[in-house]
Amino acid sequence: MIETPYLLFLGDAPDMLAAKVAIGIRDWRPENALGQLRLPGCGADLGLPDMTLAEAKAAGVKTVVIGVANRGGVISQDWKKVLVAALEEGFDLAAGLHNLLRDEADLRAVAEATGRTLHDVRVPSVKYPIADGKKRTGKRCLAVGTDCSVGKMYTAMAMEREMIAAGMKATFRATGQTGILITGDGVPLDAVIADFMAGSVEWLTPDNDPDHWDLIEGQGSLFHVSFSGVTMALIHGGQPDALILCHEPTRTHMRGLPDYTPPTLEALRDMVLPIARIANPACQIVGVSVNTQHMTEESARAYLARVEAEMGLPATDPYRFGAAPLVAALAAV
Amino acid sequence: MIETPYLLFLGDAPDMLAAKVAIGIRDWRPENALGQLRLPGCGADLGLPDMTLAEAKAAGVKTVVIGVANRGGVISQDWKKVLVAALEEGFDLAAGLHNLLRDEADLRAVAEATGRTLHDVRVPSVKYPIADGKKRTGKRCLAVGTDCSVGKMYTAMAMEREMIAAGMKATFRATGQTGILITGDGVPLDAVIADFMAGSVEWLTPDNDPDHWDLIEGQGSLFHVSFSGVTMALIHGGQPDALILCHEPTRTHMRGLPDYTPPTLEALRDMVLPIARIANPACQIVGVSVNTQHMTEESARAYLARVEAEMGLPATDPYRFGAAPLVAALAAV
Repeated sequence: MIETPYLLFLGDAPDMLAAKVAIGIRDWRPENALGQLRLPGCGADLGLPDMTLAEAKAAGVKTVVIGVANRGGVISQDWKKVLVAALEEGFDLAAGLHNLLRDEADLRAVAEATGRTLHDVRVPSVKYPIADGKKRTGKRCLAVGTDCSVGKMYTAMAMEREMIAAGMKATFRATGQTGILITGDGVPLDAVIADFMAGSVEWLTPDNDPDHWDLIEGQGSLFHVSFSGVTMALIHGGQPDALILCHEPTRTHMRGLPDYTPPTLEALRDMVLPIARIANPACQIVGVSVNTQHMTEESARAYLARVEAEMGLPATDPYRFGAAPLVAALAAV
Repeated sequence: MIETPYLLFLGDAPDMLAAKVAIGIRDWRPENALGQLRLPGCGADLGLPDMTLAEAKAAGVKTVVIGVANRGGVISQDWKKVLVAALEEGFDLAAGLHNLLRDEADLRAVAEATGRTLHDVRVPSVKYPIADGKKRTGKRCLAVGTDCSVGKMYTAMAMEREMIAAGMKATFRATGQTGILITGDGVPLDAVIADFMAGSVEWLTPDNDPDHWDLIEGQGSLFHVSFSGVTMALIHGGQPDALILCHEPTRTHMRGLPDYTPPTLEALRDMVLPIARIANPACQIVGVSVNTQHMTEESARAYLARVEAEMGLPATDPYRFGAAPLVAALAAV
């Protein structure tokens, strides 16, 4: 668990694209994003107050989160100066970088000397159990995609916000590094040892109130041969009561797999439901989330209407048109 | 890669059940099993020559394999004396114990001093790639089960032996610790990091002659919620051309999951084939392997005949009645 609130470290990020993690925190947990810290030459701006470490301390910040990717996998000396100072000022550090904070001898030494914590969210910090498949109380919703990176995290985040606004009990459950940094907690599922994948998802979504929904962040796709095992463990560990199908209609091949054609929404539906019902015979597909960013508004609306008619399921682009139809469908489960 | 041949260390195994790994090596790679080393009180006997370390050295043994489970997860001082002596005599050590050889300070120190290798086959020793899904040359067969521990390894081993005897090109590809110790090589799939599971299976089954068959050891089951993600990665990383369905008809619940009923062979067939065809559209189910150990011979034969009639696939118990029908089916692919 990462202590909040955060100061978002943008370093010398050349542009906003490099600041994806920081943007996610600002957008989805604005109450955790008290300010930003930028180095000379930084081309990103979150529109948050620029803060020194001292100002962040005074504002109550607990953790400095590295909200950018580092170039070439090297934590530069310019970054180090700030990160060391942050530890000395009493902040924890959190990052999802490929190279770990804990593998930097200087950062580790200062963290040990100051008693601060280095959170490398790509690495599991928990000894997860093997899944036992026992039915848990409370309800769970999982977003499954025709491909990787079609908007599964965004869908779950948008549904959580809509549900909480509507007075429903809902918790986004992060299974990837960005989600973990945004919410401060979760399972870095792609880094879990194979035998414990499903168990880590059970651990992440424990017994809860009967009317509480876990909104589990999806990973990979059953149709993506590189990562389908991770998706499978999410489905069987998560025991979802409800599935949201996620799709990006303009994609011509599976992400990173030029020889593989993305499946149709119907093919995903037909494959995922029997699989999900192994763990939860009551599982239903309740809606479709379409990433329409590469479509005009007119063609997006036409596409969604066609999906609704053909599949008999509510369909929306939660980013463009809101998550309300999906939440209404969940409320009816 | 573990150097062969082996001396099989049985320690103080109370009975043959505890010597499962050693029995597998003796049965499937007899040319690697030159002798056994037993401590006082050992209740297991493989029927191999009892050898001292000196005799094993003279016979050409390269590696001492721990062929038994250790009680309570502790490597005892009685074992240690022999293992240290083995390292000093110039043997490597290999084990699939839960607690690792390398975590024993004395064994590690002696191995370093003598330049010998400690093979802990439960732990990956390779940095596996992420799967790229590219079609590979050669053919691959995977055994998939209605449950865990229904005879998938045995089926693949028996087919390999039968195929080699028939002059076919075949290689058993181990994906579990017992298979790795038996053959000296493989991927400990259940210990691989989630993101690299499918890639490790691609790595294990590379391009080969067009008429060569990899017989990939199956793991878990699509219907076993604790381990289904591992099975999925095997199917998509292995790109099998042929699947063998494996079943144990008398089981009343999934292994370790008292609330889950094993699926029928038909349910497994209907689920696995569309999944396998994502990675290999030409994949076929070619036969059924039934573990009939809890059935009389009469009822076993009747069961197999019924499966053949109802599913239109050759069915056998390879242990009881031989693997020939499965090999004949593969030869026709």
